[in-house]
Amino acid sequence: MTSPPDKTLRQKLYIILFEAETVKGKVFDVILLVLILASVLVVCLESVPELHVRYLPLFRLLEWAFTVIFTIEYFLRIYSTPRPLKYVFSFFGLVDLMSIFPTYLSLVLVGSQYLLVVRVLRLLRIGRIFKLTRFINEGQVLSRAMRASATKILVFLGVVLTVVVIVGSLMYIIEGAESGFTSIPVSIYWTIVTLTTVGYGDIAPVTPLGQVLASFVMVMGYGIIAVPTGIVSVELARSDKKIATTRTCPNCHQEGHITDANYCYNCGYKLQQ
Amino acid sequence: MTSPPDKTLRQKLYIILFEAETVKGKVFDVILLVLILASVLVVCLESVPELHVRYLPLFRLLEWAFTVIFTIEYFLRIYSTPRPLKYVFSFFGLVDLMSIFPTYLSLVLVGSQYLLVVRVLRLLRIGRIFKLTRFINEGQVLSRAMRASATKILVFLGVVLTVVVIVGSLMYIIEGAESGFTSIPVSIYWTIVTLTTVGYGDIAPVTPLGQVLASFVMVMGYGIIAVPTGIVSVELARSDKKIATTRTCPNCHQEGHITDANYCYNCGYKLQQ
Amino acid sequence: MTSPPDKTLRQKLYIILFEAETVKGKVFDVILLVLILASVLVVCLESVPELHVRYLPLFRLLEWAFTVIFTIEYFLRIYSTPRPLKYVFSFFGLVDLMSIFPTYLSLVLVGSQYLLVVRVLRLLRIGRIFKLTRFINEGQVLSRAMRASATKILVFLGVVLTVVVIVGSLMYIIEGAESGFTSIPVSIYWTIVTLTTVGYGDIAPVTPLGQVLASFVMVMGYGIIAVPTGIVSVELARSDKKIATTRTCPNCHQEGHITDANYCYNCGYKLQQ
Amino acid sequence: MTSPPDKTLRQKLYIILFEAETVKGKVFDVILLVLILASVLVVCLESVPELHVRYLPLFRLLEWAFTVIFTIEYFLRIYSTPRPLKYVFSFFGLVDLMSIFPTYLSLVLVGSQYLLVVRVLRLLRIGRIFKLTRFINEGQVLSRAMRASATKILVFLGVVLTVVVIVGSLMYIIEGAESGFTSIPVSIYWTIVTLTTVGYGDIAPVTPLGQVLASFVMVMGYGIIAVPTGIVSVELARSDKKIATTRTCPNCHQEGHITDANYCYNCGYKLQQ
Repeated sequence: MTSPPDKTLRQKLYIILFEAETVKGKVFDVILLVLILASVLVVCLESVPELHVRYLPLFRLLEWAFTVIFTIEYFLRIYSTPRPLKYVFSFFGLVDLMSIFPTYLSLVLVGSQYLLVVRVLRLLRIGRIFKLTRFINEGQVLSRAMRASATKILVFLGVVLTVVVIVGSLMYIIEGAESGFTSIPVSIYWTIVTLTTVGYGDIAPVTPLGQVLASFVMVMGYGIIAVPTGIVSVELARSDKKIATTRTCPNCHQEGHITDANYCYNCGYKLQQ
Repeated sequence: MTSPPDKTLRQKLYIILFEAETVKGKVFDVILLVLILASVLVVCLESVPELHVRYLPLFRLLEWAFTVIFTIEYFLRIYSTPRPLKYVFSFFGLVDLMSIFPTYLSLVLVGSQYLLVVRVLRLLRIGRIFKLTRFINEGQVLSRAMRASATKILVFLGVVLTVVVIVGSLMYIIEGAESGFTSIPVSIYWTIVTLTTVGYGDIAPVTPLGQVLASFVMVMGYGIIAVPTGIVSVELARSDKKIATTRTCPNCHQEGHITDANYCYNCGYKLQQ
Repeated sequence: MTSPPDKTLRQKLYIILFEAETVKGKVFDVILLVLILASVLVVCLESVPELHVRYLPLFRLLEWAFTVIFTIEYFLRIYSTPRPLKYVFSFFGLVDLMSIFPTYLSLVLVGSQYLLVVRVLRLLRIGRIFKLTRFINEGQVLSRAMRASATKILVFLGVVLTVVVIVGSLMYIIEGAESGFTSIPVSIYWTIVTLTTVGYGDIAPVTPLGQVLASFVMVMGYGIIAVPTGIVSVELARSDKKIATTRTCPNCHQEGHITDANYCYNCGYKLQQ
Repeated sequence: MTSPPDKTLRQKLYIILFEAETVKGKVFDVILLVLILASVLVVCLESVPELHVRYLPLFRLLEWAFTVIFTIEYFLRIYSTPRPLKYVFSFFGLVDLMSIFPTYLSLVLVGSQYLLVVRVLRLLRIGRIFKLTRFINEGQVLSRAMRASATKILVFLGVVLTVVVIVGSLMYIIEGAESGFTSIPVSIYWTIVTLTTVGYGDIAPVTPLGQVLASFVMVMGYGIIAVPTGIVSVELARSDKKIATTRTCPNCHQEGHITDANYCYNCGYKLQQ
């Protein structure tokens, strides 16, 4: 067991690092957000060829500065939390580690090809931003509605993908390699581009029959886009209704009564209006 | 009448092949799904020119292996079902037949052109995946909502197609062959591409008047896309509500109880589960 | 006053031409629909350069055949209706006239340029298809919901168009003529193409600042597309509810009672459940 | 203190300039709208190269005419309002100033580069059109619904932007500079273009892996577009319901009466209008 003053420091650190209710905790979170956004911006700008050549030393300096700050923060988090292992293997613990690891890795493994791979891992640093949503209540409503409608949307996507494979193959037969439909996978890619109404135009049907089938796919996609929207709308309306009724039964503490309820639906106790 | 042991074997086969409630039935369905996905993948990859040249013998071998397995499965289904003819002429019976027929057909009819047509029929093999949705309850809610809103969407599509023909002809007059609007059918194709917000860009208006009309079409399409979405949302909300609120309180006849309800929220009477 | 037998013929004609409740009326409407679709198809196919050269005499013959049939129909309609003037100046009366007029006009005014203008008027012939929707109940639900939400959508489109003009001008300043943004009207056209997520790609931002503004416009358009959809959904849900309650008060004959109603909201009379 | 007749003139002016209930006020607003639209049209047309060369003197004349009219209007507004400072620093006060300032600025600061910047400020003149929406009730319903759902949409956009940065970086690694993905910012731009289903096609994936990731992004965007739509639909339905159902029966306290109701639909009690 550690001495009481030390324990108090750890607890203080814990409140600053992991919570956002106190003034210090809020200040820390805002500074952290600015640092993360700045570090992501540096990674993005470094990839621009003109800037890469001109400001490389500056980018490297900033990158190391951010990495050192985030490393100190990472170890302070491990030090302050009562259950270090649980933090290290939690989602945000792994994201925190991944957002400092690539810079150190770039020291050991030298070589342009490897550095490219390192860069993309570096980008995961922005996962920290997710932390912000922890504190926003609305985020929970959204994620609950999306999780509730996930099954319906997956079934729907399954049907859509089946249609996509059949249509893609038909277009491969009809259009052929001259129009850019060089293989069934490429045709499937085209079908997805068309059905989702993205429509790059890098591949486009040229034959009349191909254009008729394409038109059919587009009109179908037009009607189909309604389905996930409808699913999420209904789910949001429902989860929204649930929130409007966080009234708790004074007898059995059951929540989720609808707004008109006079009696608890679980134990039959009379509710106050 | 057949002997009891034989009958038992047929019944056992029937349960494995047609049902998914038993462990054996589930295992069979998962293996079948993997085989179907693998066979579709082989057809897709075979169409890629580079892979076609290099791995043609392997592709042929795999194709015949899948065909033999699916043929055995097809005849076992006919053998095990109590009403073979009903199965053969059912939707999935025909899909099952079409997913083995093309490979045998490619033996008799040799020629690259015919083989191309054969490939697309082969692709219908993935229709088997639909079987999965049979067991997913959500799929039924979706399809019920879509069937209920089908009439409204068809009326809506009829009006949209009328607009498309008129706008397409107007664009043909305004833009003419130089901008790519070579005929009314091509202009109609362009209008569908634009109204559905796909926008390939292979054909695009060049004249100011054409761009004004195109802008009008796009803004119209923007407002119009709302209609099928609204239709499906309302239909989904209704079919969803039907599932949740059919129970009626035997005391006060109040409806709208949530699925978990034990007591009427209006009068407090105990509800039957 | 005309003689009774003649009157009967006119009445019979009226029922066949204007109504669709009798067998003869239904047969006539189906034949008319087929003729209209065929005549539109002929106009469309005539515009295809290859077909135009090869089958010109056939197209002309068919065009005249359709025109003669529709002319006879037009005059029979005028003859059979009790109020000819009201028919002639009604929406469908004018559409009927416009669907025969262009062919006769092409006799007097010879010249390729004029003929092109004639063709587009000919296309309005398909306006007849609208007649079908008269008999479909769903069409009325849709059009009522769209009319009810028209004001909201117009207000919304007004705001969107204001944004479009400002963004279009900004893009003109930022990108300039080299990227294809040759004038503010062209930039406004590009903004509409982008905001409605059509995205031809004939004009696309090249400068970093232009791409940032374009990204902003796209994400905005992404959020904005929700608004008309929401409006129509709510309106459809409401008009849907209204239909479910065509119950009429036996006292004051007021309609539109909500499903839970016990008493007439207009006169307070007790309603039957 | 000013003399009574002068005060009356100021009050009259105030009613004409700031209100639209009187006939004079309505006439003034319509004239103002026409002038604003005309002045915006002049700015737009001036930017078209061909028109710029030919009609430059006319455009300048019209520009100065509009500026003088709007300047007089601006000072009359300041004169007539009881609290001039509040008007000057209000949103529309600033918009009014900005819609006359650029023309005067173009006198002092001569130079093509500066003039370009001046033009875009000039365009903000159309901000005046917003005034129209002040009087349209529907606009308030829309803006209330949008403000209520703003937090949810911002959270949603935050998550989307995080995904966009990660996907953009992945595409930069996978595709590289040869396919047009020259830097991470450009890749992020491409991801936004794809996720919002705009799809210009100026940058498009070429490698199979890039096309697979792109397909994934598109299908994701397809499911994701549902979320803001759902949010706004629910919000609109709620704000819509609020307007219709605030009246409560004084006898049984039942809510949910439609706007035309004279009697409570539940107990038949006469409602106050």
